[in-house]
Parts: sequence; structure tokens; C-alpha cells
Amino acid sequence: MANVQPKFEFVEGGVTAPLGFTAGTACCGIKPGNKTKLDLCIIKSDGPANAAGIFTKNAVKAAAVTKTISNLKNGTAQCIVANSGNANCCNKFEHEAADTTAELCANAVGVNPDDVLVASTGVIGEVLNMDAVKKGIAQASNAMSKENSSDCAAAIMTTDTVKKEFAVQLELDGKQVKIGAIAKGSGMIHINMGTMLSFVTTDAAVAPEILKTALLQAAEETYNMVTVDGDTSTNDTLVILANGLAQNKIITEKNDDYKNFVAALTALFEKIARTLAKDGEGATKLIVTTVNNAKTAQQAKKIAKTVAGSSLVKSAMFGADANWGRILCAVGYSGAAEDVSDVDVCFKSASGSIAVCKKSKGLGFDEEKATQILQQSEIEIIIDMHSGDQTAHAYGCDLTYDYVKINGSYRT
Amino acid sequence: MANVQPKFEFVEGGVTAPLGFTAGTACCGIKPGNKTKLDLCIIKSDGPANAAGIFTKNAVKAAAVTKTISNLKNGTAQCIVANSGNANCCNKFEHEAADTTAELCANAVGVNPDDVLVASTGVIGEVLNMDAVKKGIAQASNAMSKENSSDCAAAIMTTDTVKKEFAVQLELDGKQVKIGAIAKGSGMIHINMGTMLSFVTTDAAVAPEILKTALLQAAEETYNMVTVDGDTSTNDTLVILANGLAQNKIITEKNDDYKNFVAALTALFEKIARTLAKDGEGATKLIVTTVNNAKTAQQAKKIAKTVAGSSLVKSAMFGADANWGRILCAVGYSGAAEDVSDVDVCFKSASGSIAVCKKSKGLGFDEEKATQILQQSEIEIIIDMHSGDQTAHAYGCDLTYDYVKINGSYRT
Repeated sequence: MANVQPKFEFVEGGVTAPLGFTAGTACCGIKPGNKTKLDLCIIKSDGPANAAGIFTKNAVKAAAVTKTISNLKNGTAQCIVANSGNANCCNKFEHEAADTTAELCANAVGVNPDDVLVASTGVIGEVLNMDAVKKGIAQASNAMSKENSSDCAAAIMTTDTVKKEFAVQLELDGKQVKIGAIAKGSGMIHINMGTMLSFVTTDAAVAPEILKTALLQAAEETYNMVTVDGDTSTNDTLVILANGLAQNKIITEKNDDYKNFVAALTALFEKIARTLAKDGEGATKLIVTTVNNAKTAQQAKKIAKTVAGSSLVKSAMFGADANWGRILCAVGYSGAAEDVSDVDVCFKSASGSIAVCKKSKGLGFDEEKATQILQQSEIEIIIDMHSGDQTAHAYGCDLTYDYVKINGSYRT
Repeated sequence: MANVQPKFEFVEGGVTAPLGFTAGTACCGIKPGNKTKLDLCIIKSDGPANAAGIFTKNAVKAAAVTKTISNLKNGTAQCIVANSGNANCCNKFEHEAADTTAELCANAVGVNPDDVLVASTGVIGEVLNMDAVKKGIAQASNAMSKENSSDCAAAIMTTDTVKKEFAVQLELDGKQVKIGAIAKGSGMIHINMGTMLSFVTTDAAVAPEILKTALLQAAEETYNMVTVDGDTSTNDTLVILANGLAQNKIITEKNDDYKNFVAALTALFEKIARTLAKDGEGATKLIVTTVNNAKTAQQAKKIAKTVAGSSLVKSAMFGADANWGRILCAVGYSGAAEDVSDVDVCFKSASGSIAVCKKSKGLGFDEEKATQILQQSEIEIIIDMHSGDQTAHAYGCDLTYDYVKINGSYRT
């Protein structure tokens, strides 16, 4: 991406920002007792769209995931229906429920059932309340509009505390193009797929195969670099619909338009990745781990993710404790570094920056200044490997009392 | 091990239980401000002993580890000196400090410096206070006796809350043999080496190479199956001294004596592994994860360790929440199971047992009974893979507020 000058800007509107997309939501009581939280949403393109997706690598895949993978096989889709409050996974009726959800949605919004992508998030092992889903689909499909992106972002939240909704605008082939996205995910998100659910819409014209390539490329350095805990969900889903209404010349190969599109998509995903990490369950801080001057890109990524995922580093960041020894220790057990004798570590935030370790040995440093830096809400751990020129960023958060509290009684 | 009938019993005395071992401890102020906690210990065999060790796989190795590896090369040693309060790792003088510690100890107890094994545990990156170490070695070496095993177990503790000290007795070749061990470790302990420090003594006569084999074999199913957090220390050390004073026929091959010796050693390590896991930082419960009927031993181990290490499973156990979906999810992302369609899950404790998942689908179960079972202090998660006949146990603990509290301000 290094040669492409970014030519995009962030705009309002989320998934309904691009031409030809509408959305609707409902509060239908999928989780017993829920009478106020939005728990179902539908996102629809006016016409058929090229589509691609990336899914959990967990061997246990929820019915929605297998359904969506199957419906994406022909490279087109028109609609996404998602529910929160129940993952519809590991229960006897999950596949039936996912099929019925797609059919109900298809009938309600007038599209082919094979063009409906399904997603679910919530507790595993409980049967999905199809009466609620039916009611929700009726309600949401009756409320489709250009105004509902933000409500969609709310409808897919579980333990999330902030909505994740962004959009970018760029020019391709002289035409104005928009890309919008919403996402949810704050626990059970890890490096295999940095989010539980993320839905992306664009009015750009992009051929299905290259759309998948773009999605993978943008996710690789963003969503796939988010780590909150070590767990990988059964339901992780990232899908994109590209309806082509911007009327740019269709992107079919890795030309300049492709590069600009991917640059904008990557920036969009990075924004979401940071928001996801910062909103990690119980988190009080965004921790960006940057590895510089690594031998290979793989090394940079592996070290960044290992440090960002270390429970001890995360706990120290929560306590604003400049315990860099744990960072070096994590570099050591990452399995990516043969030589750990020449590693520098530095902390950086809005309060300034401080070097704490040089050539793998502790530096005398001002503990008070370090604490001040680590008390900010966005912290960067910068690791210099002095062994090449590759860089990577991982997006994580601190480990707090609240993470434990939230996850000690998730089902209740 | 299946064919060997265990012929051992647990006895008192820890590392000084075997013939010819004495120990001494000191409180020498290695951690600034510490005036009451024991922080140095010496364990000595009257004569030279055959010796073997297993060490951290972290690429960052503390000076004590490299020193001990070097001194074990000839397969003999006579003495162990260990300090808590400072890991003597990642500082400019670490190697000098480890060398000097070995020399001071050798002179004080009258052994060859090459026969001294050194171990350190505590904070990384700070220079070891050699004045304190000098004082401590003088003090400890003047107090060598058969009574000090328990104090040694205390002297190596950091955030541990209970001492880990056990001994077993068995008959080999008509002779009574004892094996004693102490250990410490409650954070930063993971599957690569289930403890930060463990010292084992025996009066059995065992040749150096087969002693190493026995140590590896016993550790494989015990220490290496302990997981508290995902971190691996720079200082992990497990060493054994076998001085042969029991006068059994020296074990040089995998005969019945070897099998009996390994069975006793494994039982000793299992006892310690359970204690280590239960005393995991902030833990309120021991969680034993048992995988039955796995296809291969490797699969059983990998699944057991993945489930035991899942932050979400650990948090649920803390909250006594029978959230078995997270267990199935962890089985799925373990990377060890291709087929996850026929997995049973059951919880067991002193309160009884309850099946919660059959053929990977949720069972209706009595939530109240499940909660009661999960409120006990020792819980077993039993996973049946229905795909073979292999079993493994992993030893872990719950994830609690206190883990975060302890690790948010470890250095202060």
C-alpha cells in the first residue's frame, strides 16, 4: 500500500451512506425479558450486489455462518439479516432456524432467499426464538430507510458499550464512491477474525473475486490484528456488498482504482479495529502495540499480537505500571524472535513518550512520567527489533476487573 | 504407565526428606523494603548427585537459567541456591550476578562452583542487589538442617499464597527411597513449563541420562499441563538432584525400577501441579479439564490445555456460570479437533456431576444444581470426544478480579 496516496475522507451515514442501501431494525425480544434493546436488523441493497465474506476459523461454526458461506458461493447477495441475543449455535434446530430466518427475510423485503446473508451473535447453545425473529423481521422490513445505520449498529451489540459505525468517501474513475460499515464485538474476539460481526456496504462496482481479495487485504492489517482475549467465536462474520450504483468502471484487477479502494477500505477497518479494541469487554484503554524494524512482516505481526494478547501486559496497562519486562518476556515467547538481545521498548500517549528499555536492558526512567503516560486512554507500546524494516500494529486493550465481572455471569 | 501398580506413599519432609539433603534459608532484603519475607534458600546434598533439568522455552532466558543449564552439562550437581524478589533478567549485570551467586554459595557450603545450580524469580529488568545476596548466602549456609524444607518453599514464593512442598516414599530394589519437591509459581506459568521454579531431591541412585528422561516423562503430564495465564516466564526452572544414598541398584535403563520411580515422581508432580493451578494468581478454584476418548494423546492434551486456558471459560467458572458453549467453542478453536459434532460436556465436583451438552447440542439441565456444582473449590470439566481412547488432564484455575488486581501493580 506504500505507494498509494490516500484519497478518501470520512463521512456520515454508516452502511446506508452508499447509494442504494437501506436498513431497518426491530426490538423483538430474542433474549427472554428484553423489551427495550434493538436485537434485529436488516440491511438491503436496492438491486443485487457483488458480495464476499470472511468467517471464523473455529471448527465449531454457527448455522448462520454456514448458511452465509453457502449463499455467498455465487458471489452475489442483496440483503443481510442479523440478530443479537442468541448465537443460534450448538442447538438442535440451528440450521432450520437459519434457513427460516433467510426465507422470512427474503419474503419480507422481496429478494431471493439465496441472496440473504444471515448473522447471529449472543449466547451459544440456546434455541433461537423463531416467533421473536418472525416478529422482528416484519417490524424491521416495514421500517427500511436511509436513516437507520446507527440503529443497525446498536441492534447487533451484545456487551459492546459503543456503536461502531463509520463511512468513507473516495473518487474512483471520476465517480464518487462511498463505503460504509458497522461492527460489533468486544469479547471473544481474537486474531483469527478480529470481530464477531461486521457488515460493509459500498456503491462501488467491484467484481466478486477481486472484492474478496480486497476484503482479505484490508482485514489482514486491521480486524485480524485486534485481540481482546484469546478466544475465537463460532459466529465471526465479515461481509461486504458492492452494488455498483456509483457507476465507476468495474474493478476487475489490481489497478490504481483497486489500490485506492483498498486504501479507503483499510482506513475504514482500522477505525473500526481501534474502536473494537478500545471497547473490549471491561476495557478502560486502547493499547496499540507497534513493532518496528522487524525482520519480516510475519515476525512484526506475530510479536505485536503476542504482546497485545499477554494477560500480564494487559493487566500492567490497566494499572498504569511501566512493567516493560513483561513486554520483553512476551516478545521472547512469541516464537517469532530468535534474537532478543537488541530490543528497545518505549511507551507513548497524549502525555508524551518515554523509553524504558534499550538493547533489551532496563533504562533508568522517570516512573512518575511513565505512570502519567500510561494513565491516558490511548496508549502505544513501541517495540524496535533492530533487525529489518517491517512494521505491524496490533490493537488491544487492558485487562480489568470488569472483564471478569462481565464474563463471570454472561448468561444471567 | 498403565501397567505399573503405584507402590508409593506420600510422606512429610519435602526436599529434605531423602537421605543426605539439608537446606537453609534467609531473609536478606533482595526486594527493597522487605524485612520479613524469606527470600533466599540453599538446598544441598551431602555428596555429589546426578542431576537433570528442564527450562523455559522463552527466547529471553534469565542469567540463572543459562548458568544452571551450563552447570548441568556434566550431569552432576550438589547444591541449589535460589532467590525470590528479583528475576535477575534483562539487566546489564545479570550474568555477573549469577556467576557471583554460584561462587559465593560454593564457598559458603564447600562445594565446587560448577556444582551449584542457580535460580531466581521476581521482577524482570532490575539489577540484583548483591550485597543482599551475599548476606543471605552467609545466613542460609550457616543454618543448613533437615528441618528447613518448608522454609525453602516459603523463600521462593512471590505472589504465591500457599507453600508447595510434598514428598513420596517408595521401594526400589528392596531399598527405601524418597523423592521430595518444592515449587513456586502462580502467575506467568503456562504450558511450556508449568511452574517458574521447582526443585526436586531424591536419594535414589539414577544415572544422569535416564534421570532426565524420567523428569521429562513426569513433567509432561503434570507441570506441562498447568495453565494459569498465557504467559511463559524467562526463569522457569525444574531441576532434580539424585544422590544415590538409598543404595538401590542404580537405574540406567527403563526397567521396572524406572517405571516405579517415574510413577512416584509423576504422582508427586501431579500433587504440585494441582496446588500450583489452585494457587494461580487471584484464583478461587482449581479447574481440572479432562478430555476423554480423544483420537490421539496429542489431541487430548491440546484440547484440555485450550479449554483450561480460555479466558472466557475461566471467567465463567469464577462466576459459577455453566456456560458450556464457551467450552465447545474452545474445543473448536483448539486446532486439534476436525470433527466437533459429537462432543459431550459434563461438570463434576464434590457436589455431584451434571451433563450439560450431548453430541454438541445443549441439554436441558437443572441450572440450580449446575451452579451448586460450580460453586465448589475444585471443579472438573469433563469433555468426551467419542473419537478414540486417549485421555488427558489440564490443571487451571478461574480468572478473577484479584488476578487483575495483583498484576495491575506487581512492581509496586
